[in-house]
Amino acid sequence: MAEPWPDAPLALALGDPAGIGPEIAVKAWRARTEQRLPPFFTVGDIRSVEAVWSGPVERIAAPAEARDVFARALPLLSVEDGGDIVPGEPNLEGARCSLDSLEVATGLTRSGAAAALVTGPVSKAQLYAIGFVHPGQTEFVAERCGIAPENVVMMLAGPDLRVVPVTTHMPLRQVFDSLSVEVIVAKARTTARGLQRNFGIANPRLAFAGINPHAGENGALGSEEIEFIAPAIEMLRADGIDAVGPLAADTMFHARARAGYDAAICLYHDQALIPLKTLHFDDGVNMTLGLPIVRTSPDHGTAFAIAGQDRAHPGATIAAIRLAAAAAVRRKAECCAA
Amino acid sequence: MAEPWPDAPLALALGDPAGIGPEIAVKAWRARTEQRLPPFFTVGDIRSVEAVWSGPVERIAAPAEARDVFARALPLLSVEDGGDIVPGEPNLEGARCSLDSLEVATGLTRSGAAAALVTGPVSKAQLYAIGFVHPGQTEFVAERCGIAPENVVMMLAGPDLRVVPVTTHMPLRQVFDSLSVEVIVAKARTTARGLQRNFGIANPRLAFAGINPHAGENGALGSEEIEFIAPAIEMLRADGIDAVGPLAADTMFHARARAGYDAAICLYHDQALIPLKTLHFDDGVNMTLGLPIVRTSPDHGTAFAIAGQDRAHPGATIAAIRLAAAAAVRRKAECCAA
Repeated sequence: MAEPWPDAPLALALGDPAGIGPEIAVKAWRARTEQRLPPFFTVGDIRSVEAVWSGPVERIAAPAEARDVFARALPLLSVEDGGDIVPGEPNLEGARCSLDSLEVATGLTRSGAAAALVTGPVSKAQLYAIGFVHPGQTEFVAERCGIAPENVVMMLAGPDLRVVPVTTHMPLRQVFDSLSVEVIVAKARTTARGLQRNFGIANPRLAFAGINPHAGENGALGSEEIEFIAPAIEMLRADGIDAVGPLAADTMFHARARAGYDAAICLYHDQALIPLKTLHFDDGVNMTLGLPIVRTSPDHGTAFAIAGQDRAHPGATIAAIRLAAAAAVRRKAECCAA
Repeated sequence: MAEPWPDAPLALALGDPAGIGPEIAVKAWRARTEQRLPPFFTVGDIRSVEAVWSGPVERIAAPAEARDVFARALPLLSVEDGGDIVPGEPNLEGARCSLDSLEVATGLTRSGAAAALVTGPVSKAQLYAIGFVHPGQTEFVAERCGIAPENVVMMLAGPDLRVVPVTTHMPLRQVFDSLSVEVIVAKARTTARGLQRNFGIANPRLAFAGINPHAGENGALGSEEIEFIAPAIEMLRADGIDAVGPLAADTMFHARARAGYDAAICLYHDQALIPLKTLHFDDGVNMTLGLPIVRTSPDHGTAFAIAGQDRAHPGATIAAIRLAAAAAVRRKAECCAA
């Protein structure tokens, strides 16, 4: 059974116009009936869509027009920064367009005109070249929402697994000095609250990975479990959060183990992303927890190498739209409950 | 189609008599026809089998008797060290029995009386208590074969994935100082040779993981890829070995990516074991490469907590027996080829 749809349409920022963002947005729209997708509108340069598709695209002036248009054409709120648009050949105007699209889509979601924000793939290298000062879109959106970046959580979610990396894009060597009881507790609390608000899980079960082989074997194979992870779990339990671990990371991601928790809290990027992408390479969704708005993103990059070749898979974008819609409905219901 | 069987039976050391080793050996034997298993004999204390099973067990005096017995009863070459045998309650006599069983089974395989060695789960903590000086069974077997432990390779194999961790049981922090071009090259060479000898893969394709997120992003997220991994790959290529990488570890284990290589060379325990056990928790096999004999092992422990409860899954042991038999046949064919 399909989830009920949010009252407002979703905003889908197309990402870099030379990447696969426009193509997968089109593919998601074409699958809207079969996939029972809620109405959404895209934000970006109409030429980036026309470069990869000759079907119906219709400009809208405001999100409210999207619902009617959605049935007959891909609704697009136009953001133009000039420059040539050639799939697979990024340029600085395109980077500016991706940033402006993100800005517009974020603002419309903040205002309530859009029910949720879905962000397409951008090129960080291109964004840095135009002076973008944030590590990525997540931190930009957090700032626009008035939230410090360290207070949001990146959750990766597929149908069979949800993971949260406590640390993200840093050399593995630096992870050890970046961990503390406080950081782990803060990320876990935001995760628990996010599972309640966005997924409707009343009492989220969190499973914590160890960082060392066999979760350190009581100190024989490393001390971080004893120093940071176990004390963090203790604090969370004292708060009434259902937290287990530290568990041996290699035996916590098979099907029977996954049935025991709602999210795995991992210590570093690959510990979270290896199992997630092994299971959900084509339909993994990145959801930012801790924001006043719902924000999701397909868990892949611009894939410039295959842009414009009709080879991009829309699975992750479809999943990101669906997850965002369901979360928006749940949060609205929560906020309006007596 | 079943593989042809080796000329000699396989030796299966039962491991700790209080663990699940005897139970899964029995379950493998009972499935011998359905699973088309080659004749094997067990090495251990007959009481450990009788404690969990009332079916036919028959003592043999030498491996040559196993083939006839195998059709009607579980063949067992008895090793007894006294002590009570209670499933789930390990003791020091049981640890000694597991070590003596390993010694006997290894010797019989070295002599050629057994075609291959399959080792059941032992308790390292119990073995250390009786003065065992090796980190694990692998190093013991290597020494008995006259091979230095650092020259053998632990490969974990399932039907859909083979992985090799360059470093194994050490704190994650120590991995960085344990890596060098030489270590990576040596492990990869042994892996390539092992894939040829044991799996019949003429030109093995090796895929190397990076150790940092996104394989270090050209140095932006860590330097080990540039310092150690890429140079090792260069050296291997110069030797004619098909080596690719360093690859982003999170995107190399989904089905399409796995189709591109025969083994993934990983830098640390969990990087290899997370994807392996996510995909193959019930049928993962540990195979030691670089030995003059074939040695495999089910990729799980003694599971004392469920011993004697008829709950242990024999899948990994069945897979270990099958893989060992196929490798023994291939190595024999290679050794006797003109």
